[in-house]
Amino acid sequence: MTSALADHIAGVRLVDNHVHGYWLAAADRRRFENGLNEANIEPLADFDSGFDTQLGFAVRAHCAPLLGLPEHVDPQSYWERRSQLTESQLAAVFLPAAGVSDWLVDTGLPGEIAGLPEMAAASGSAVGEIVRLEQVAEQAAASPGDYADAFRRILFERSKTAVATKTVLAYRGGFDGDLSAPDTRAVAEAAARWRAAGGVRLTDRTLLRFGVHEALRLDKPLQFHVGLGDRDCDLHRTNPMLLLDFLRQSGTTPIVLLHCYPYEREAGYLAQAFNNVYLDVGLSVNHLGARAEAFIGRTLELAPFRKILYSSDAFGPAELHYLGSALWRAGMAAVLAGFVRRGQWSEADAMRVVDLIGRGNAARVYAR
Amino acid sequence: MTSALADHIAGVRLVDNHVHGYWLAAADRRRFENGLNEANIEPLADFDSGFDTQLGFAVRAHCAPLLGLPEHVDPQSYWERRSQLTESQLAAVFLPAAGVSDWLVDTGLPGEIAGLPEMAAASGSAVGEIVRLEQVAEQAAASPGDYADAFRRILFERSKTAVATKTVLAYRGGFDGDLSAPDTRAVAEAAARWRAAGGVRLTDRTLLRFGVHEALRLDKPLQFHVGLGDRDCDLHRTNPMLLLDFLRQSGTTPIVLLHCYPYEREAGYLAQAFNNVYLDVGLSVNHLGARAEAFIGRTLELAPFRKILYSSDAFGPAELHYLGSALWRAGMAAVLAGFVRRGQWSEADAMRVVDLIGRGNAARVYAR
Amino acid sequence: MTSALADHIAGVRLVDNHVHGYWLAAADRRRFENGLNEANIEPLADFDSGFDTQLGFAVRAHCAPLLGLPEHVDPQSYWERRSQLTESQLAAVFLPAAGVSDWLVDTGLPGEIAGLPEMAAASGSAVGEIVRLEQVAEQAAASPGDYADAFRRILFERSKTAVATKTVLAYRGGFDGDLSAPDTRAVAEAAARWRAAGGVRLTDRTLLRFGVHEALRLDKPLQFHVGLGDRDCDLHRTNPMLLLDFLRQSGTTPIVLLHCYPYEREAGYLAQAFNNVYLDVGLSVNHLGARAEAFIGRTLELAPFRKILYSSDAFGPAELHYLGSALWRAGMAAVLAGFVRRGQWSEADAMRVVDLIGRGNAARVYAR
Repeated sequence: MTSALADHIAGVRLVDNHVHGYWLAAADRRRFENGLNEANIEPLADFDSGFDTQLGFAVRAHCAPLLGLPEHVDPQSYWERRSQLTESQLAAVFLPAAGVSDWLVDTGLPGEIAGLPEMAAASGSAVGEIVRLEQVAEQAAASPGDYADAFRRILFERSKTAVATKTVLAYRGGFDGDLSAPDTRAVAEAAARWRAAGGVRLTDRTLLRFGVHEALRLDKPLQFHVGLGDRDCDLHRTNPMLLLDFLRQSGTTPIVLLHCYPYEREAGYLAQAFNNVYLDVGLSVNHLGARAEAFIGRTLELAPFRKILYSSDAFGPAELHYLGSALWRAGMAAVLAGFVRRGQWSEADAMRVVDLIGRGNAARVYAR
Repeated sequence: MTSALADHIAGVRLVDNHVHGYWLAAADRRRFENGLNEANIEPLADFDSGFDTQLGFAVRAHCAPLLGLPEHVDPQSYWERRSQLTESQLAAVFLPAAGVSDWLVDTGLPGEIAGLPEMAAASGSAVGEIVRLEQVAEQAAASPGDYADAFRRILFERSKTAVATKTVLAYRGGFDGDLSAPDTRAVAEAAARWRAAGGVRLTDRTLLRFGVHEALRLDKPLQFHVGLGDRDCDLHRTNPMLLLDFLRQSGTTPIVLLHCYPYEREAGYLAQAFNNVYLDVGLSVNHLGARAEAFIGRTLELAPFRKILYSSDAFGPAELHYLGSALWRAGMAAVLAGFVRRGQWSEADAMRVVDLIGRGNAARVYAR
Repeated sequence: MTSALADHIAGVRLVDNHVHGYWLAAADRRRFENGLNEANIEPLADFDSGFDTQLGFAVRAHCAPLLGLPEHVDPQSYWERRSQLTESQLAAVFLPAAGVSDWLVDTGLPGEIAGLPEMAAASGSAVGEIVRLEQVAEQAAASPGDYADAFRRILFERSKTAVATKTVLAYRGGFDGDLSAPDTRAVAEAAARWRAAGGVRLTDRTLLRFGVHEALRLDKPLQFHVGLGDRDCDLHRTNPMLLLDFLRQSGTTPIVLLHCYPYEREAGYLAQAFNNVYLDVGLSVNHLGARAEAFIGRTLELAPFRKILYSSDAFGPAELHYLGSALWRAGMAAVLAGFVRRGQWSEADAMRVVDLIGRGNAARVYAR
């Protein structure tokens, strides 16, 4: 690779447009290894190891040196070294090393994880909040009075300081079926049923649709979990093509399709088809490790270059907050150097696209 | 790459088995940039540019030198130089440079675009017509007397001098559902309803099915738009696997699956599964630019080498008529050189496959 | 490639975890060329040749030298040389050359093909049987007394010496729809209907479901044909994501997803999501030839490295028993050398993953 492009990619300060907090409480090895598996919701089988995955190999390749260990160090040594540090100490190592200027944090996950202040302190970077709509729904269900009014009030209040909203509709029935805005009476009836049932873990389709359409009315980007996730989600019901009718009526609110694997080519098509649709590479880049390069190549097909965003979607081990950045930089460097080497792109264009995807597009979309 | 293979690929005279006319009227910059976006049917957003896509980069890389500009010239300079020429002058530059001996032109698109005589004159090459079935249907609806009779008569007349037929069923409801031949009474009833409604933009399923089955009865190849297109088409309803039942009853008429992205692997499977099914790479190759190589690689998986065809599917800017050829040649050269370098293919075989895909298969199928 | 890794890959003794017998009776050229096409169930068209496919090119590249011919020899010479040997002589050339220590043979295919003793004799290696559930069903239909009892008794008897079971549900309606265990009365009624209809080629959904759930209760791996096959199978109904609900209730019995093309990324996701799900590369590797490398790369995305298995799925020409191994070794060598070269994997890890996929995982799963 030409060194100017490599240097440029190494130096760009990223906006991580979708991330979660790192763990605050110490993990045992089993929890750590499970943290390297995205899809499985059970403890890993005895014969298995979270280290024997692309992500596990990537941790040993890229994270070990930051802990003073050789690249590709054996899992046991990695675990022992990691265990000498607290999760907060690990965060203080890995977050600053990511070269991220802004972390946009989805705060809707439960558990003992870092919030905005910890993320800012550990990294020395700016933070912004992403409000999860299904959490707003639970808050509205727990509020007195009309559900729709409560939802709108809470969403409005929380979004004053937030940079975006997010929906996990993918996990709550998927994208197929009617996603139009429900009418007032249907919302009231569904809310009454849900409140009567306890108001936990929203799966009611009417209320999910209501939330998404309320979010469209805010002047903030709306993020959709798409594709890769754990097995509670029916992966094939999260093909973003199933959002087509919804996108046709979504107006000008930016819609960010997150993760997208294995539908990144479909997501790229949608990013070309709609002025307000964006494609993100988070989660996938981490879990694909050495194959992140192939994934990044596929995201650079139909999606216009002003419509692609960087994120890590890191959650839990602080390694992931760094690794997303390391793998994205390595993958972009390999893919773009190939374009340049074959005369398809100029080096100057390659650098400009790195700037757009790494931070420029996100700065524009999220007004950072 | 070995130079013998590279030279061979550079020299092969192509049959472009699916293309449209170039623009006749001058385009403003907005129209030109929109012409570089396939999927979006709205004007590009103010923050966006058609130049910041794989296709836009490819135009600057490959077309600029033909206008006397350096490779990768900046968009503004490209636009200014392009604006100094009429669209017909541009066609006279780009069409001959494509190295195409035969343009098979789908004449079913409206607008001020080149017809067969202009295409022949600008390129100095042979031309053939592809008759769009949905246009024949509109002509039949506007004719007196029985619809089915009129359709058959017009199709027969037009196909005398045409080389193939084409359907855009993909845009008129997609491939899922019954695609068997409708009975006479159902056709008559549907035609009466459609004529009563004005006979424009055919979406009636019965009449669409009727047209396709009439085309099967001609002794000419039948082309299907598959996959990539604009967002009026439900991309996921154009997965060619949904044609499976239809293909099982399609007999021996050659069926050409056009474009195919992101379903090129499924299309390749069908090309292996049915003696009469073919795979085409048009449109996709242009819009994927530097990634056309990856796409071409995927088309060389299950599809037998005697069942793959070249096309550009160019429409509008004359650059696209050239670029399809340039990107196909570059992509084939890179992919096949890789096969040869790793000892998987001989160089002689690689050259022979280039000849088959570039022209031999089309010459056989379309009797050129 | 570093020579240590290349040497290691060349030397590993494989467990071929899903294969069929080679032909015993001499084939004419037409039959041989059809044997190089998986999907087509008709004789190849006169204009076509089974040699003009990735598999055909791979036969000439990799198998010709074992018959004393140059690499990439012309098809006619290959055919003439091959015709000088009996199928058993060919097996004695190609099977030992595969470097396979254990052949796990699906004996459920009809025809004059090698059984376990011939496979063992020709190769000098160990063999194990895989029992096809739909064959057990036919045997139960032909047995006196209660169908469910007969099925269980036959399955139990046959599985005593077998290493696994297999279902071709993919060919008998596909994966969509209810795959839960049917109740006793429904099974009895369906069996009565099927027996009355002759008890051939099971397509009754209730009995197919019954068979699969009975297999789950054995302490043996259960293999599913997934994806690529002939056109009798509706490819899009064999997307393994459609097995999601079934997998959620499948307990701890190992489920092996065979072939998987073009759904290998979905299969990899499932192998990560479920402790008992495995991914196999057979059939696809042979038919993709020079593109097997790309396919192998895609299988190394989400699937944990302890969940991927080697097979050839060879059937018919003895070349295929060797070629699966040759293409897998070449593809793994290219993909893993790339990971090592870019610093993503260590060479030692690459060797270890080769051992896991080539034999270690299968030895564990099938207790070899």
